[in-house]
Amino acid sequence: MILDKINHPNDIKKIDPEDFGRLAEEIRRFLIENLSKTGGHLGPNLGVVELTMALHHELDFPKDKLIWDVGHQAYTHKILTGRKDGFGELRKFGGLSGFPKRGESACDSLDTGHSTTSISAAIGYVHARELRKEDYRVVAVIGDGAMTGGMAYEALNNASNLKSNLTIVLNDNKMSISENVGGISAYLGNLRTATGYTGMKMNLENTLNKIPVVGKPMVRSMKITKQSLKQFLIPGMFFEEMGITYLGPVDGHNVKQMVRLLREANRVKGPVLIHVVTQKGRGYTPALRHPARFHGTAPFDVKTGLLTSNGKATYTDIFSTVMRKLGDRKPDVVAITAAMPDGTGLKRFRNMFPDRFFDVGIAEEHAVTFAAGLALGGMVPIVAIYSTFLQRAIDQILLDVCMQNLHVIFAVDRAGLVGSDGETHQGAFDLSYLTMIPNMTVMAPKNKWELSDMLKYAYDLDGPVAIRYPRGEAYDGLKDHRQVIELGKSEYIHKGDKIAILALGSMVKVGEEIYQDYLKKGKEITLINVRFAKPLDEELLEEISKEYELLVTMEENVASGGFGQQVAAWLKGHEKEKKLLSIAIEDSFICQGSVLELYKALGMDKDSVIRKIEERL
Amino acid sequence: MILDKINHPNDIKKIDPEDFGRLAEEIRRFLIENLSKTGGHLGPNLGVVELTMALHHELDFPKDKLIWDVGHQAYTHKILTGRKDGFGELRKFGGLSGFPKRGESACDSLDTGHSTTSISAAIGYVHARELRKEDYRVVAVIGDGAMTGGMAYEALNNASNLKSNLTIVLNDNKMSISENVGGISAYLGNLRTATGYTGMKMNLENTLNKIPVVGKPMVRSMKITKQSLKQFLIPGMFFEEMGITYLGPVDGHNVKQMVRLLREANRVKGPVLIHVVTQKGRGYTPALRHPARFHGTAPFDVKTGLLTSNGKATYTDIFSTVMRKLGDRKPDVVAITAAMPDGTGLKRFRNMFPDRFFDVGIAEEHAVTFAAGLALGGMVPIVAIYSTFLQRAIDQILLDVCMQNLHVIFAVDRAGLVGSDGETHQGAFDLSYLTMIPNMTVMAPKNKWELSDMLKYAYDLDGPVAIRYPRGEAYDGLKDHRQVIELGKSEYIHKGDKIAILALGSMVKVGEEIYQDYLKKGKEITLINVRFAKPLDEELLEEISKEYELLVTMEENVASGGFGQQVAAWLKGHEKEKKLLSIAIEDSFICQGSVLELYKALGMDKDSVIRKIEERL
Repeated sequence: MILDKINHPNDIKKIDPEDFGRLAEEIRRFLIENLSKTGGHLGPNLGVVELTMALHHELDFPKDKLIWDVGHQAYTHKILTGRKDGFGELRKFGGLSGFPKRGESACDSLDTGHSTTSISAAIGYVHARELRKEDYRVVAVIGDGAMTGGMAYEALNNASNLKSNLTIVLNDNKMSISENVGGISAYLGNLRTATGYTGMKMNLENTLNKIPVVGKPMVRSMKITKQSLKQFLIPGMFFEEMGITYLGPVDGHNVKQMVRLLREANRVKGPVLIHVVTQKGRGYTPALRHPARFHGTAPFDVKTGLLTSNGKATYTDIFSTVMRKLGDRKPDVVAITAAMPDGTGLKRFRNMFPDRFFDVGIAEEHAVTFAAGLALGGMVPIVAIYSTFLQRAIDQILLDVCMQNLHVIFAVDRAGLVGSDGETHQGAFDLSYLTMIPNMTVMAPKNKWELSDMLKYAYDLDGPVAIRYPRGEAYDGLKDHRQVIELGKSEYIHKGDKIAILALGSMVKVGEEIYQDYLKKGKEITLINVRFAKPLDEELLEEISKEYELLVTMEENVASGGFGQQVAAWLKGHEKEKKLLSIAIEDSFICQGSVLELYKALGMDKDSVIRKIEERL
Repeated sequence: MILDKINHPNDIKKIDPEDFGRLAEEIRRFLIENLSKTGGHLGPNLGVVELTMALHHELDFPKDKLIWDVGHQAYTHKILTGRKDGFGELRKFGGLSGFPKRGESACDSLDTGHSTTSISAAIGYVHARELRKEDYRVVAVIGDGAMTGGMAYEALNNASNLKSNLTIVLNDNKMSISENVGGISAYLGNLRTATGYTGMKMNLENTLNKIPVVGKPMVRSMKITKQSLKQFLIPGMFFEEMGITYLGPVDGHNVKQMVRLLREANRVKGPVLIHVVTQKGRGYTPALRHPARFHGTAPFDVKTGLLTSNGKATYTDIFSTVMRKLGDRKPDVVAITAAMPDGTGLKRFRNMFPDRFFDVGIAEEHAVTFAAGLALGGMVPIVAIYSTFLQRAIDQILLDVCMQNLHVIFAVDRAGLVGSDGETHQGAFDLSYLTMIPNMTVMAPKNKWELSDMLKYAYDLDGPVAIRYPRGEAYDGLKDHRQVIELGKSEYIHKGDKIAILALGSMVKVGEEIYQDYLKKGKEITLINVRFAKPLDEELLEEISKEYELLVTMEENVASGGFGQQVAAWLKGHEKEKKLLSIAIEDSFICQGSVLELYKALGMDKDSVIRKIEERL
């Protein structure tokens, strides 16, 4: 095994380039076998094996800075920097992260997880290098998907100031790219790398001079030909000269060719973009056939590609079903996703109502303001974005939707702890950033039926509404508790005495476990399904602040700005001197692990909460 | 006066086009005279008088939807829709807003205030129109400055799906545009409007066929010529075919020409961009000479252009001075602004340290992640962004800076109530969205000296730090209270009994007024300058929760997630049953008015707070 020789950063430099093909093959086998057991982002990683090898052949770690946009495609980078033994515990509690982590290796230059940050950070590194007169290479690897995010454009717009090299590798796996790029890439690839961009430009200038009427005066009036040519052909569209040198496209599975371009790029004083064409899922037929399913996968059978276990319906599944029904009954419902038709469950809606479905790309800011426009035009938009990604559009929610009190429904999936994706993906803040906004209504369902009820209720409501629900299996307990939803009203699940638990969303399940535990011990406590994080159920608070010895709030959100603090503030403001225990996510970035492991680590599981309750009594 | 005939929407259609020149002249005089008394965005509005007239000549209000990006340039639009009588009270409490407001007129189609939202909302309107089979025109007017925001790119990327017309007017006032655009615009303008874009494209295709070696196979391999030409000349940069038809450039002071293009645009089934070249400040020499100062101005003398009153130093002035000193002493300090070197006070830093100053354009997301990169590279970035605009970059603050615990300093100007800009500009949320973030330190200075001390302290600290300070005059009271700053420690201003006021930042001044008021009545209360919204001064809370009858928190931020709630939660969590009165901004969008008027309306001024205190005692 050649892979056995790779144990530390830069070990690849000792491998004979003749053996690169075999090494790539071994890495692919390693990834498929390991991920079939742990799950993970298989497709993206199979696509960049050779690209990563080429980068590691050229760069010097940890001196050089390599930034992986999003970061879920950094597995080969982890293997080549001596972390291969960690893959047995990939994405598990205490194990290897599925994303770059500076804390994990000095060879990781930026902790990523969200899209479209790499070029901005890389520009920062380059300016710092210039100012400190240091000498290292900075390379950002960004996918074609991430290029639909506006931040990439903001960054490219700023790259032109650079006086020294920045290499941007565009990892183009053609998945979300229009046809013609693929069509001309093979031919133009050879052509461009042969003659180079500058040669081509001069040819065109000469030719333009020959165009009758238009050509000559045009060239004459142009001070800098390259800029002006661009502006002539994309007239008016991009005013800012980007000033990025383009190299490629190059076959992303040919290490030799990529190494050549990486060297060529390094000779340019300024920003260079290398266009690398890769194949997502390369080397594993099921991943090639089902790219969306193998983008991020649960454990699977290597032979068949089928998932080894199929769980119960998720909240996303429920959302998916309700959306189909809602779409059917309500012709004014439209659905918006930011590049996640599969992840959000909107694929079925898209198939049934293609005219009323909008995938805007990885563009959460646009998604929300676009929804505002749709609402102004008389539609009822349902915007399905994960809690962690909605952080990108808070200003748009604030001003474009809520300030104007528009009827836009936010389906906030993956709210609370998400498990194996870790720090960057936890939905730990949405209750804080949504409840701070005037006019907003914020709900969270206790179980699968309530998500359905809340969606229908949100449609009937007016103004902005958010429904937050967790990742993974939908709770199917408490089926018989299905009280009609009323604005700002909670639901009693059990009425007991001494202790009243006010649980929000996913925490109702834990509350029920606590209730059952006490019941076994012969005590009956009160369990309330809060339903609304905003507006607060003041009537309920008034009522319960008279009766109980201890009130307990429970939520999957940080304490600051969360539900517990609202309750504390209300009690204080109304001089209700009642004991309050608030269970929330602690004030830190929460690592990966199963949700249950994280509950335990954070003191949010049944036993921890009971212990805290007993301490306070 | 022709202007006398303009009293209702669409009245301009009754004016003889021969009189448009005179009308424009009268509108300019009207704007200069009124704004010399009220202040306002003079420069941008003088630039779009004829553009607005052309739009109103063509559009039918309120049926058609006209969206003003940012919105501070909509004064002529207000005049032409029957709101001219409101200009005496422009930007005043209860008066005419300086921005479009749907509540003010049915002719306003979107409430704006922040940059780069117009195209997204317009696309929403267009899709709604298509789905509802309605018939109205949708026009977005966006400035060249706003085009540096990534959201514009996200929107343009999504415009190509449109099957019916969307007109985007690019209001290009050349202020922030690179030289060559201006250089070729006059010539190409005539050319393009004469032959049209399509004719030009065909010419080029024919010509490319004649290029030796490259030309023919290139054209052959292209399926859609327009797309491929673009991709060939902007190789690799923009993969998504934008599909926007371009018209222009056109003289933005020639109504007739603009009307022609607006009609031409309307014939296109799909998105069209009209490139309009305007002159900021046109018709008023001082505004032409000092475009930055007259972008938004206080009242001024029409003859001289000088401000009629010069106030005391603002917090921004103090920041400006300290930054110069800090830049001088600390070579690793770098400063970042998102298109506001004047507004943030960084202009002087830029002049002294051009290499360490970065204006990234209206690109807050990039600004923050770029800062993260600079910090990773060993610099100490100070990011100066207004509280309201920082809402655009919360996700980047969260993950790119705070998750990685980087030493980035946020200078959060215009925190709290901002006065005449109103709803869209109030800095009412930053305490909530900053304190929810792990690893973040959040400070607020009580007076001018403390801002200086806090900036120096923030430099010496490690990790992410935010300092929030208000718009306008810096408080120069309490000069003698200048206790050394310690992490998370408050400062006693006065020690009394019964009542303890915990005031944050700007509220210390109001707290001092309350203290003096009580003193006159022979009572001495305690006044504490909280300094840190995060971390909480738990030692202080422990101490004061023993002594007083009533604790009062005061902050210029919404209650939800604010300082008062943190205190309430701490007291509840530690079973301190002490009365707490929390003064904060109410849960609604706060209108325009002077800060004092708003304090009174919100019950945050001295008298209101004293009344509330007495009620609670």
